[in-house]
Amino acid sequence: MAAVKLSKEIARVFVNSFDTVLFDCDGVLWAGSKVLHRAVETVNYLKDSGKQIFYVTNNSTKTRAQYLEKLTKLGFNADEKEIATSGYLVASYLESINFQQTVYLIGSKGFAEELQNHGIKHTQIGPDTMATDMPSYVNGQIGLESEIGAVVIGFDEHLSYPKILKAANYLANPNCLFLASNADETFPMEIPLVVPGTGVMVKAVETASQRTAKVFGKPSVAMFEAIAKQCKINPQRTLMIGDRCNTDISFGKNCQLTTLLVLSGVTSLKHLEQYKHKEEHILVPDFYTDVLGDILDFLEQ
Amino acid sequence: MAAVKLSKEIARVFVNSFDTVLFDCDGVLWAGSKVLHRAVETVNYLKDSGKQIFYVTNNSTKTRAQYLEKLTKLGFNADEKEIATSGYLVASYLESINFQQTVYLIGSKGFAEELQNHGIKHTQIGPDTMATDMPSYVNGQIGLESEIGAVVIGFDEHLSYPKILKAANYLANPNCLFLASNADETFPMEIPLVVPGTGVMVKAVETASQRTAKVFGKPSVAMFEAIAKQCKINPQRTLMIGDRCNTDISFGKNCQLTTLLVLSGVTSLKHLEQYKHKEEHILVPDFYTDVLGDILDFLEQ
Repeated sequence: MAAVKLSKEIARVFVNSFDTVLFDCDGVLWAGSKVLHRAVETVNYLKDSGKQIFYVTNNSTKTRAQYLEKLTKLGFNADEKEIATSGYLVASYLESINFQQTVYLIGSKGFAEELQNHGIKHTQIGPDTMATDMPSYVNGQIGLESEIGAVVIGFDEHLSYPKILKAANYLANPNCLFLASNADETFPMEIPLVVPGTGVMVKAVETASQRTAKVFGKPSVAMFEAIAKQCKINPQRTLMIGDRCNTDISFGKNCQLTTLLVLSGVTSLKHLEQYKHKEEHILVPDFYTDVLGDILDFLEQ
Repeated sequence: MAAVKLSKEIARVFVNSFDTVLFDCDGVLWAGSKVLHRAVETVNYLKDSGKQIFYVTNNSTKTRAQYLEKLTKLGFNADEKEIATSGYLVASYLESINFQQTVYLIGSKGFAEELQNHGIKHTQIGPDTMATDMPSYVNGQIGLESEIGAVVIGFDEHLSYPKILKAANYLANPNCLFLASNADETFPMEIPLVVPGTGVMVKAVETASQRTAKVFGKPSVAMFEAIAKQCKINPQRTLMIGDRCNTDISFGKNCQLTTLLVLSGVTSLKHLEQYKHKEEHILVPDFYTDVLGDILDFLEQ
């Protein structure tokens, strides 16, 4: 099964076949601070054409409100209820099960705010460093709290040995929940630098605790289920657009959606060839194109 | 295949069948600071009987010299050349390939000293924390060094996000070596506390770099190969004694040695029953007994 290259010949049929379009953000709408070719016009055009629009991101470092602010500032005609972040999903889930204890949070300010928005108590974020050596540390006051009912992991640039140790000890209690915003190994970057992502934090705590986190971000179907709870969506008439095969495209496939890969982010045409070769069908999109704005370009040609 | 319980009836035949005995240390000879029942007498007896003795430990936080000091102080009749630590193996390996660049070290003072003992240059150890947030950090001066030819991982209580990021970026160069002292998930403890081990650090960097470390500690055969290089060893007449099935016993099996599990450390009789049930033969020892000193007790009965 090979991916079909989007072209002006099929663009109109392609667009007409969907009622709902899900957009990944980073690498699809923008790269870092730079909006990609005609991304704003394309999304707004699809919305104006009457399609349901959703922004689905694994990024847990910003709240939905912060995402809305960014989208609006860049010119996207967006609404907060169209935005699903992995942090929002985790917070909604905890609210939905009436979670009353405290979350041990390995995460950022934005994730902490999202938890607070849903009335979920959490431990303090920020640096937690080792002032001594391990033997002295474990024989001293580690400062484990008694009220912890869940370990929650999002991106945290202050990940440290004490945080991993504390998380593993809370998780020694089998009743303690273990949730993660996403499992992305790295961040997509404009500069040639490897920037470790939340997946690194998840793997570290999973290894120490010998438990497996429930991951809410793509490719987990949790994100689609949360959207589908809000409004009627027919997967057969839904398109998922992303730049990363092992999250976005897998997510689309897991949810029985049609998938479009844009080559403006993480996954390159070279990667795509490798996936086809290895017959990793879950990673091969139905369609691909260079950049999101191609859709509008093709429709106008 | 079930493990045979050691008994006075078979003790003499058992002991006579070996020329060489390999001992794991923590959980076999001592638990924390406490020497286990007749451990010193048993090891010294076996050595006095003419058997070759080796102490094989995955611990990279102490040099061989420091291990010798500890063993001697506790009464073991030991010699430095009988001691193989995972840190020593990594350092010897780098020396053997005439490694001339600098090691990026995620590790402890003892590991650093072991590298120095073999003439290997390495980066500074100790805290490397995040003074800002990730976006500012990656846009600023990360301080990557140009001379790095290997990333080496041992236990490091100062593991942090900047260290993982730096390691992943050095490893983006396919010529950069990636070595680890061991992959133990946790430390064996006397107190009921989960203490994350080197395996957590290895997994974090493996996830960020999408590369796999060459691991020198047990269950890798590297430790046996290093010993076998020093002196003649017949695997068929060699016994490996350990307290941990997924390192010590697997190691023995990987090296075609006879294996004895002592129940004075990590693996309990309950674990052993589970391994048998799951048919995880690599984890099932040939023999087991409560504690190392049983050997001497049985011989004297």
